[in-house]
Amino acid sequence: MAISNTEKAEVLTQALPYIQKYRDKIIVVKYGGGAMVTKAHQRSVMGDIVLLNQIGIRVVLVHGGGPEINETLQRMRIQPKFQNGLRVTDAETMDVVQMVLSGKVNKELVNLIGGAGGSAIGLSGLDGRMVEAKPLSAELGYVGEVTKVNVKPILDLLDAGYIPVLSSVGCDKKGSVYNINADTVAARIAGELKAMCLVSMTDTKGILRDPKDDATLISEVNVSEASHLIRDGIISGGMIPKVECCVEAIRRGVGRVFIIDGRVPHAILIEALSDEGIGTMFF
Amino acid sequence: MAISNTEKAEVLTQALPYIQKYRDKIIVVKYGGGAMVTKAHQRSVMGDIVLLNQIGIRVVLVHGGGPEINETLQRMRIQPKFQNGLRVTDAETMDVVQMVLSGKVNKELVNLIGGAGGSAIGLSGLDGRMVEAKPLSAELGYVGEVTKVNVKPILDLLDAGYIPVLSSVGCDKKGSVYNINADTVAARIAGELKAMCLVSMTDTKGILRDPKDDATLISEVNVSEASHLIRDGIISGGMIPKVECCVEAIRRGVGRVFIIDGRVPHAILIEALSDEGIGTMFF
Amino acid sequence: MAISNTEKAEVLTQALPYIQKYRDKIIVVKYGGGAMVTKAHQRSVMGDIVLLNQIGIRVVLVHGGGPEINETLQRMRIQPKFQNGLRVTDAETMDVVQMVLSGKVNKELVNLIGGAGGSAIGLSGLDGRMVEAKPLSAELGYVGEVTKVNVKPILDLLDAGYIPVLSSVGCDKKGSVYNINADTVAARIAGELKAMCLVSMTDTKGILRDPKDDATLISEVNVSEASHLIRDGIISGGMIPKVECCVEAIRRGVGRVFIIDGRVPHAILIEALSDEGIGTMFF
Amino acid sequence: MAISNTEKAEVLTQALPYIQKYRDKIIVVKYGGGAMVTKAHQRSVMGDIVLLNQIGIRVVLVHGGGPEINETLQRMRIQPKFQNGLRVTDAETMDVVQMVLSGKVNKELVNLIGGAGGSAIGLSGLDGRMVEAKPLSAELGYVGEVTKVNVKPILDLLDAGYIPVLSSVGCDKKGSVYNINADTVAARIAGELKAMCLVSMTDTKGILRDPKDDATLISEVNVSEASHLIRDGIISGGMIPKVECCVEAIRRGVGRVFIIDGRVPHAILIEALSDEGIGTMFF
Amino acid sequence: MAISNTEKAEVLTQALPYIQKYRDKIIVVKYGGGAMVTKAHQRSVMGDIVLLNQIGIRVVLVHGGGPEINETLQRMRIQPKFQNGLRVTDAETMDVVQMVLSGKVNKELVNLIGGAGGSAIGLSGLDGRMVEAKPLSAELGYVGEVTKVNVKPILDLLDAGYIPVLSSVGCDKKGSVYNINADTVAARIAGELKAMCLVSMTDTKGILRDPKDDATLISEVNVSEASHLIRDGIISGGMIPKVECCVEAIRRGVGRVFIIDGRVPHAILIEALSDEGIGTMFF
Amino acid sequence: MAISNTEKAEVLTQALPYIQKYRDKIIVVKYGGGAMVTKAHQRSVMGDIVLLNQIGIRVVLVHGGGPEINETLQRMRIQPKFQNGLRVTDAETMDVVQMVLSGKVNKELVNLIGGAGGSAIGLSGLDGRMVEAKPLSAELGYVGEVTKVNVKPILDLLDAGYIPVLSSVGCDKKGSVYNINADTVAARIAGELKAMCLVSMTDTKGILRDPKDDATLISEVNVSEASHLIRDGIISGGMIPKVECCVEAIRRGVGRVFIIDGRVPHAILIEALSDEGIGTMFF
Repeated sequence: MAISNTEKAEVLTQALPYIQKYRDKIIVVKYGGGAMVTKAHQRSVMGDIVLLNQIGIRVVLVHGGGPEINETLQRMRIQPKFQNGLRVTDAETMDVVQMVLSGKVNKELVNLIGGAGGSAIGLSGLDGRMVEAKPLSAELGYVGEVTKVNVKPILDLLDAGYIPVLSSVGCDKKGSVYNINADTVAARIAGELKAMCLVSMTDTKGILRDPKDDATLISEVNVSEASHLIRDGIISGGMIPKVECCVEAIRRGVGRVFIIDGRVPHAILIEALSDEGIGTMFF
Repeated sequence: MAISNTEKAEVLTQALPYIQKYRDKIIVVKYGGGAMVTKAHQRSVMGDIVLLNQIGIRVVLVHGGGPEINETLQRMRIQPKFQNGLRVTDAETMDVVQMVLSGKVNKELVNLIGGAGGSAIGLSGLDGRMVEAKPLSAELGYVGEVTKVNVKPILDLLDAGYIPVLSSVGCDKKGSVYNINADTVAARIAGELKAMCLVSMTDTKGILRDPKDDATLISEVNVSEASHLIRDGIISGGMIPKVECCVEAIRRGVGRVFIIDGRVPHAILIEALSDEGIGTMFF
Repeated sequence: MAISNTEKAEVLTQALPYIQKYRDKIIVVKYGGGAMVTKAHQRSVMGDIVLLNQIGIRVVLVHGGGPEINETLQRMRIQPKFQNGLRVTDAETMDVVQMVLSGKVNKELVNLIGGAGGSAIGLSGLDGRMVEAKPLSAELGYVGEVTKVNVKPILDLLDAGYIPVLSSVGCDKKGSVYNINADTVAARIAGELKAMCLVSMTDTKGILRDPKDDATLISEVNVSEASHLIRDGIISGGMIPKVECCVEAIRRGVGRVFIIDGRVPHAILIEALSDEGIGTMFF
Repeated sequence: MAISNTEKAEVLTQALPYIQKYRDKIIVVKYGGGAMVTKAHQRSVMGDIVLLNQIGIRVVLVHGGGPEINETLQRMRIQPKFQNGLRVTDAETMDVVQMVLSGKVNKELVNLIGGAGGSAIGLSGLDGRMVEAKPLSAELGYVGEVTKVNVKPILDLLDAGYIPVLSSVGCDKKGSVYNINADTVAARIAGELKAMCLVSMTDTKGILRDPKDDATLISEVNVSEASHLIRDGIISGGMIPKVECCVEAIRRGVGRVFIIDGRVPHAILIEALSDEGIGTMFF
Repeated sequence: MAISNTEKAEVLTQALPYIQKYRDKIIVVKYGGGAMVTKAHQRSVMGDIVLLNQIGIRVVLVHGGGPEINETLQRMRIQPKFQNGLRVTDAETMDVVQMVLSGKVNKELVNLIGGAGGSAIGLSGLDGRMVEAKPLSAELGYVGEVTKVNVKPILDLLDAGYIPVLSSVGCDKKGSVYNINADTVAARIAGELKAMCLVSMTDTKGILRDPKDDATLISEVNVSEASHLIRDGIISGGMIPKVECCVEAIRRGVGRVFIIDGRVPHAILIEALSDEGIGTMFF
Repeated sequence: MAISNTEKAEVLTQALPYIQKYRDKIIVVKYGGGAMVTKAHQRSVMGDIVLLNQIGIRVVLVHGGGPEINETLQRMRIQPKFQNGLRVTDAETMDVVQMVLSGKVNKELVNLIGGAGGSAIGLSGLDGRMVEAKPLSAELGYVGEVTKVNVKPILDLLDAGYIPVLSSVGCDKKGSVYNINADTVAARIAGELKAMCLVSMTDTKGILRDPKDDATLISEVNVSEASHLIRDGIISGGMIPKVECCVEAIRRGVGRVFIIDGRVPHAILIEALSDEGIGTMFF
């Protein structure tokens, strides 16, 4: 490798204070379906998470899994229906969502973490009744809105040294199960944990003033400015609910929220351990 | 209710020493697919488990789920294949097994425990790499044989007050996933935990000398006699591997193993908390 | 025994939540001289107390012992004197009271608990200066009124796993010893301990509207109603100070107070562990 | 006071290392009936014990009470009988012994300790089944011989900061109560506690070569020499069993045993905290 | 030794309550250069400190060392300069002060404590940045005034069982080192530690109304009176800043401050452990 | 900075496992007088030590200080004498050695660590009697040889979060003080601590086959080969005792010993946190 010892020392003297700063602190990583580009990429991301965990950072992973759900629904010849970008979820569909998210995607991430030398426990919002929900609207069926989160199981697992991996499913008091947007779950969990930061791994560079020009990346957004950016159309479309989750997380006590391009190799290591930020930071 | 105070006192003075004896001790309950007769019955069994947990018994639940797997395979038009009573499992089938066991049956039991006032965490053998496996035979595909169990996650969860619910899936060091017989998993887990007892909830009365006559129930079997009972044909068919698991569990340090008729209401309460045994006890 | 498994399950499912509810909670039992009918009965009551202790309830026993005191005074040819139902206690009599209560009755109960498999430590109000007193009135001599209670020794013994057994004797700051009414001591101790409940084992059914008709038992009394019942003559005679102790205990933070017929076999088990109340409950 | 500062400093520099040496160590004091000369003297001895306790020594007091027993038996017109210097104890006498030792003498010492600012808990060998016994001989009735001691309650009370005060009564497994020699109980308890020392407060100067001449005091006896002293008649009469208890205590692991003249004011302070020994030391 | 047992008992019964009272409490001893009369005297004082430590008192030693500094400056041909009784300290002098105080006097005291059986750790105000300072005045050079004290290292060492020995040197945030008056450091450290008492070992009897007549010693001074005593000239000269430190210490939460004649043998033992005070007490 | 994100990620993914491996482990760093090239360099080295400490490595610093000692001796017109490369140390010289090492060099390093954000406690071998010594030979005066090391104070300080900084001075049981070779002290301390590694910062590249050619650096030496390298003359001169200390350290349980060129910037960071070794490793 062509990196000189002086350069190494530079990287290390820059990284070590971050390592100390994050020691024993909680970072919630939201790993969206769109950023799960290949199996190799998933393996690399899980490797980064294990590294962060090994130096004493308490990492919590919240994941989505849209593409996998669609594929299974198709195999079972159930036609997915969407309304305003949200999946309409009848009982039969919910059964599949639950199976795919908690039984397939979740366990595969757990398995990859195990393969990278970490120890993960896969959870859904039903485990320990962590995520309580109610219907988001009558028309959407079993699409849920979070009413309450209980992070005790996550804290217990962190204390025992595990990496909790959470699928975005919840239930109401009667036991009905709901499909919930993973950004929302990650924001609420991070808020309740008073996480030091929430890193949302997406398939975009961050917030761009001109979506066609990466050089127009806005690197920092104070949450008080977010509504202006929406009003001015700089934040638009599917990015709006994402940003609203970021704002919500900060309001509930998360230190910093980052929207980063999860497809970039080792994006999370660079973000966490160097002075140079990538993506957009909300504070 | 027609039970007199004197009778109540009798039941209680009989039960209290058992309650003391089991306090803080581990009981592994294997809940087989055959004993999951109705949703109402499942709810009742989970209620009993919560009661036992509430009086300080550390309950671990291991479950199967054959019927549900078959149903989903059918829905996905995958034809189940069996060889010597064991499901032949190709990669596609394994995917379904994993989804149904860990994503559906497991989470439903977790959900019912939550509804009964308990707090459960659903696990597979992949979580915390708890169950390591290898192929049972070349022909059976992803049917696994247990090579190693790691019960630390179960102990951590018990210490934190949860009821661990485990689906019978494992993986090898490379991350390949295997479907494993739930009796075997329960026996190995119980052995490693040095459980006070393992209760196998099945769809039979126990070991009967004459299978057509319930009155011929053998209430106690010393593990040293088990092979004679097999040789003499008293234990036969599908009961043979079940009994071998019982013997294995005792050999690995479990105090007592019970095969009981899980379809009987509150069977597990009666078995645990009264002088009167039901089913067959191995010691 | 003619109790069916279904009936057993009923008793148990009813009892288990109480067992959980009382776990690690404090129950003060006042065992009055009148309820100490026979040695066999004492042994049975101590057996019940050991059972409750074994399932994790922190039991404190406060006892009286009037009949035994009278008998010994007689043997020593000291004529007992009473004034308004309270024993007039000169120095010589006090010496005998102290010896009989703390040296005989107390140690016999301790001995019976030991015989039933429990571990008790017998105490008087002098030990650890737990009960401080002053003369109730000039005429009654060494009959005391509680001025202060110190429950640290009781808590220390409970924490170390013992059943504290307390005789109702106290002393003032100069070391003079006083005979105190056991109901009062039990109420004050229970109040200071913020006990979950105080169970007073007496020789009556509880509060009866018509003392000749057991069917007129009042099963619940709100402490705010007690004075009306006294005014209306429903509570009268020796029951008045007893009820005043119950009211006092509730006011000082005890959850529930029960006056039960201690002569009924296993009365305390039925009261504590079933839905069916016996006697009168104050709340 | 005529003691100069230099003399004070001498006493203190001599005492402080002993104070450090005894800190957190156990001293068992046997306070015999013969040394309980007056109430004022008892108060002074209990004051010394409280001082020792306050500087961190874990003091255990074992007491006798012969004179008080005789007096009460007399009052109750029960004629005391002796055989070979041991009281013959029928059931009626045992009742009185128990009442006087555990209900009167014990509680008076507890009360004096309380008055001196300490916190004592009075115990008999029945409490926590600490002293198990069997009949010493058929003729002596309820005179017991120690078969087993259980010092857990004493250790629990020491840990909680109390001074345990123990009367020399024990019981057998069936609950029969026995009167036991206090020297024996003290020796066995000290041995089981591996006490740093056992101090026996008696009414003699120690072992004298010539009983009429205090100047012939033997200040140290190696336990291996004790039998010679008995054979040679230097130790004789009632001193023989006392010395045998000393030897027994050393054999069971007590560091040092002292026979001192308990009637001398502050004898125990001088013995414990100065270079100058009084009485006879066994090692 | 001519001290009778009765006199010993008197000294001990007087001392023991003080020993209890001081157990686990902090005493700060300021040992001034003037009181370090001979090596033998230093050994005796360190011996007393070890004795106090051995009976459970948490002793902190703060020392000066003027005479030794002067001697070394002389050897190095650096002329000491004084201004208003305070040493003018240039960089070269400061280097010597630091070396002598922290490298010589400090380590000799540590060594003497080790020789007396104690375990000391020598510290300066630089260690753990315990004493932060700024220049007292422009003219005095590196003579410092305390701006902040951090006693965590002292508490950590006390908790681990050591005797901390502190030289009166501090530094500012940039790392410049300052020579600080030892009385001031002792007073600030004692105040921050909320010490039970501060004992200042000096070369005077205490505050005398008539400096020529020891019989006019003022044994107690309420801090509110100190300014009157200064105004009236009774406290004057070098005693003024000393007394101001005493007042400061009391104001910052120290229980009692004593100015004693450190040249008297065992002065500190007499002061701490007898009713008789020597020197002047501020409260 | 011209380091790309990919390169940063490479450095980090390489470093993180080392960081985990060293977490909570002990590294002893020996900082020799020869490597203390400038004040700025000392500041940089102390900065590296603080960084290592901040990521959870328990760093112990042992230092020499020959040049500073010589300079002060000169100032005090004491002529340094050497015999076989070891300083002959009379009482007067020893006084200076002690003052310079423990009062000057030690406190300056402590001060620099404080300035870099760490918290150090400066110690000599006298503190807590950590280093016991005896004369190395009659002719050398107060030059000592280690007879015993007591690392409890170092462990206590590490547990409390401090960086212990130790000067190489010791004493014998009588309190005579000795100057000891810093390599020896570091090796013995590291051995007693069972340190994970000992890093000796010197003014050479390591062991060179040809001392004039840096390319002939021997990067690894098994301790069993060291004597051959000495015999063959590859290790010679002042390097021989250094290497003997390395061998001694490994024999006493240190995991790895490194001789590195302490003059290279950040040498210790590169050595500890990258795959690339610099200098010579003994194992």
